[in-house]
Amino acid sequence: MAETTTTIVFAIYDGVTQLDFTGPHQVLARMPGTKLRVASARGGTIDADGLHFAGLERLADIAACDVLIVPGGMGTSAAMGDEAFMDEIRRLAAGASYVTSVCTGSLILGAAGLLKGRRAACHWASRDLLAHFGATPDPARVVRDGNVITGGGVTAGIDFALTLAAEIAGAEAAQAIQLMLEYAPAPPFDAGTPQTAPAEVRARVERLTARSAADRQEAVKAAAARL
Amino acid sequence: MAETTTTIVFAIYDGVTQLDFTGPHQVLARMPGTKLRVASARGGTIDADGLHFAGLERLADIAACDVLIVPGGMGTSAAMGDEAFMDEIRRLAAGASYVTSVCTGSLILGAAGLLKGRRAACHWASRDLLAHFGATPDPARVVRDGNVITGGGVTAGIDFALTLAAEIAGAEAAQAIQLMLEYAPAPPFDAGTPQTAPAEVRARVERLTARSAADRQEAVKAAAARL
Repeated sequence: MAETTTTIVFAIYDGVTQLDFTGPHQVLARMPGTKLRVASARGGTIDADGLHFAGLERLADIAACDVLIVPGGMGTSAAMGDEAFMDEIRRLAAGASYVTSVCTGSLILGAAGLLKGRRAACHWASRDLLAHFGATPDPARVVRDGNVITGGGVTAGIDFALTLAAEIAGAEAAQAIQLMLEYAPAPPFDAGTPQTAPAEVRARVERLTARSAADRQEAVKAAAARL
Repeated sequence: MAETTTTIVFAIYDGVTQLDFTGPHQVLARMPGTKLRVASARGGTIDADGLHFAGLERLADIAACDVLIVPGGMGTSAAMGDEAFMDEIRRLAAGASYVTSVCTGSLILGAAGLLKGRRAACHWASRDLLAHFGATPDPARVVRDGNVITGGGVTAGIDFALTLAAEIAGAEAAQAIQLMLEYAPAPPFDAGTPQTAPAEVRARVERLTARSAADRQEAVKAAAARL
């Protein structure tokens, strides 16, 4: 086998949903011949749901990468409006073999102009917003369109990362990671999608997230207008 | 509803498998009326698979908690031999309503003398070691025995945390979290357990982990001898 190293960059920001990237990071950290770099616009520390991720690189200090991964979260709206961050997303995506996202990270790819004419996944509650960027929302858990691979909401990042690992390192390597992480999920409820969740559960979530959903819609429209 | 706050402490250490606690942390961060505290023996920063978790509290500075969660990882062996850490595990467990673990975190509970006569889960590759601590290894993904709730390897932490959320906040709250995190898993392979993984995949994992498995067995025997 060739002695190549795959460089994977996680581009994060304040208000990222940490599991959007810690899930894929755990999967890809076990992939042979891989260098993971976690970076933000300004480096240093990022706060996410009470966890503090320190020692981050600056995106501008990363010359290039093979895979760019953009996670989602409540901070997506602000990130789309951060021109320094968005410039780095565009620059790194231009040289990457794979341009990828998890959850509402696909809105950031869209706001960067990277999803025109592409099918893409997103968190179910924000998926339709992809159309503002000329993308076709796809309800699949992991969506591939050319060199763009996108995952659905939050926990879809684990399925996304195993798919990416199989693509880069082969099915056996991906399966070995799955076994090491004992990924044989057994959710205690079947409430992971709006189609399977009880109506009162969906109503509760829509009530809890109404304000952030409205903010996100405004941010997406503003970002789309700048494209 | 009563205005109570559930305090949940994650007790972490160098070499923890980050998804063992970032998965449950993401789930429980969305639970109403919950305060999450992440702490280590000495506070500060913990490194895990290239991620740096900063701003940690010192376990000794936490007077008490309702739920103690101990994740697993490569660092489990060293943690079992860290008397300052183990003393804090014993102290916090003594006052907790729920004593819990994910992955090889159950070995730490066992080494603290907390699993005698109990059924418990663990990562599949280390599960049998629980017997050294007088526990009964249980292959279920989430195991409850009295106030001890344990999860299997790494990703089982998400199923564990949803089970815990249902126990504390009710099924509807847990289902709302599941929907927010779009937890409708769809692994690209069926290789998450030694029973379902192809033989060559299992052989590959056993080869990759042979040395750490041997180290862990020695550490467990030494810890059991101290009980």
